[in-house]
Amino acid sequence: MKKKIQKKIDLKTKPVGSLGKLEDIAFKIATIQQTLTPELKAPSMLIFAGDHGLADAGVSAFPKEVTHQMVFNFLGGGAAINVFCRQNGLNLKVVDAGVDFDFDKSLNLVHAKVAYGTKNILEEPAMSEEICNQAIEKGRELVRAEHSAGCNIIGFGEMGIGNTSSAALIMNKITGYSIEECTGRGTGHDDEGLKRKVEILKKASSCHNPKDAAEVLACYGGLEIAMMVGAMLEAKALNMVLMVDGFITTSAFLVAHAMDSTVMENAIFCHSSEEKGHKLMHRYLKVDALVDLNMRLGEGSGAAVAYPIIKAAVSFMNEMASFEDAGVSNLE
Amino acid sequence: MKKKIQKKIDLKTKPVGSLGKLEDIAFKIATIQQTLTPELKAPSMLIFAGDHGLADAGVSAFPKEVTHQMVFNFLGGGAAINVFCRQNGLNLKVVDAGVDFDFDKSLNLVHAKVAYGTKNILEEPAMSEEICNQAIEKGRELVRAEHSAGCNIIGFGEMGIGNTSSAALIMNKITGYSIEECTGRGTGHDDEGLKRKVEILKKASSCHNPKDAAEVLACYGGLEIAMMVGAMLEAKALNMVLMVDGFITTSAFLVAHAMDSTVMENAIFCHSSEEKGHKLMHRYLKVDALVDLNMRLGEGSGAAVAYPIIKAAVSFMNEMASFEDAGVSNLE
Repeated sequence: MKKKIQKKIDLKTKPVGSLGKLEDIAFKIATIQQTLTPELKAPSMLIFAGDHGLADAGVSAFPKEVTHQMVFNFLGGGAAINVFCRQNGLNLKVVDAGVDFDFDKSLNLVHAKVAYGTKNILEEPAMSEEICNQAIEKGRELVRAEHSAGCNIIGFGEMGIGNTSSAALIMNKITGYSIEECTGRGTGHDDEGLKRKVEILKKASSCHNPKDAAEVLACYGGLEIAMMVGAMLEAKALNMVLMVDGFITTSAFLVAHAMDSTVMENAIFCHSSEEKGHKLMHRYLKVDALVDLNMRLGEGSGAAVAYPIIKAAVSFMNEMASFEDAGVSNLE
Repeated sequence: MKKKIQKKIDLKTKPVGSLGKLEDIAFKIATIQQTLTPELKAPSMLIFAGDHGLADAGVSAFPKEVTHQMVFNFLGGGAAINVFCRQNGLNLKVVDAGVDFDFDKSLNLVHAKVAYGTKNILEEPAMSEEICNQAIEKGRELVRAEHSAGCNIIGFGEMGIGNTSSAALIMNKITGYSIEECTGRGTGHDDEGLKRKVEILKKASSCHNPKDAAEVLACYGGLEIAMMVGAMLEAKALNMVLMVDGFITTSAFLVAHAMDSTVMENAIFCHSSEEKGHKLMHRYLKVDALVDLNMRLGEGSGAAVAYPIIKAAVSFMNEMASFEDAGVSNLE
């Protein structure tokens, strides 16, 4: 099948290889779907929101209440991810994975709260094993629902003040890069703030000694990251296309990948973030991102903005003429 | 006005600067249009096709008749640029700028032929001054028509077997980079073919001694490049947004820029091509491209694929909530 897919790509009316990364994406999606006519159906974006016990220690430039305030912004349609999903036809769902706030049940929110935020990881693991497993299972369940509704390509976004800290700690434990290499400015620390963040994360790193990816996840959180891990594992199990973008989403991918390395077969890395550790995550995974727009917003924004490029890859595969169809002379 | 534009961008519900290049694009388009609510209207893509006398000397891996064969492919909707324009809502027009073929007048083609291809530049200038000026004027006229129809953002594509040679020679004369630095594999030369191409272009470079950008253009062609130069100058004169992408399109931009440096104010560089000299063109112009998808197809494909990103920039500017609108806490 792989040979047939490559041949179809090579016989399109263009010099061989001249569509660059679009050809790689077309090849990948056709291989996932085992077809010469791949399709993207009912694309979804799930945003998982959760709070972090560590936020009170001053790891973020923004106050903790911004997590639930931003959830309201998502529900009101005013955040960047809303704009990009509307523009590009992605079906957006906002998931309360573990926000420290009581949302009214009438809100158009996926009510999946497992806990009111994580514990302070300087004192104890972010989640118990049980809470962590609940979050993973909930993530799986939500993706099963998307798949049942006809979705075959899915992006993962997140919101959680303090979650670049969780992501940096997960990265540190899984990849072995130092805390300095893993820690970036997040939402906008100055040099002073960054220095303080590095000090706190060094302490946090030495607090726990997890022995596998599941323990890393439970120790360092967050609830939204754990739910993304479950969502990614289930999306792979259902043979969907996974759109992975920023620093926090990729930290969830690191955990999912450590649990099941085949998740790589279905993943497209959409955007290379400005958040410091992200390029090192890509190096560790030996992958290249589709685009680099110097963004560092989270929310799944990198995937939502890159989606039309993925669509272009599938479109050329299905719609472009071959040399023979078009009566164009090919190289001998 | 610039301060107001920047303030509007900074007060959106996101960390300052976190939308990266999208913020730069939003700022640029708002500045061009002198408004806090920029708009993209009736986006167009003009593809200019022309033949090259030098093609007979073996500078391309493909035979010369591919130029008119590809024009038929464009008209049939089967080329990459058709697929990308359809997907992203760009209005595509195919222009016969100077193809060495008689197209039936009934075809849905912009009949703007100035000559049946350029002369062989190893023997004489590609175009007389008169022919070159006609091509420039025709390009201006076509853009005026788009503008009258309501278009305020326009991309420029091209098709012409042999035109990476013209582009390399134009680049060499305008930027001063050597022929080796300017010459790439085009549609797909192997090492042997590339070596031969470099030899021919060295000879061509020494054949003529143009003393300004207009003479460079006339000496080294092609007709499609000259028409793009006129199109770009007129688009700037009408204060439209210019989408500039690949190696040949950027060679036209080099000429337009040498004639009127203010064209830079309205240009967005959409894609960084795999064709060797393109990154050096960007270095010479001191610009960065929006994306790099390893493409090297021409046809305006880089602009058509990048268009949704430009649209995303304008959309966030208009549709995202501010901190105040959304009741989200901002940094002090």
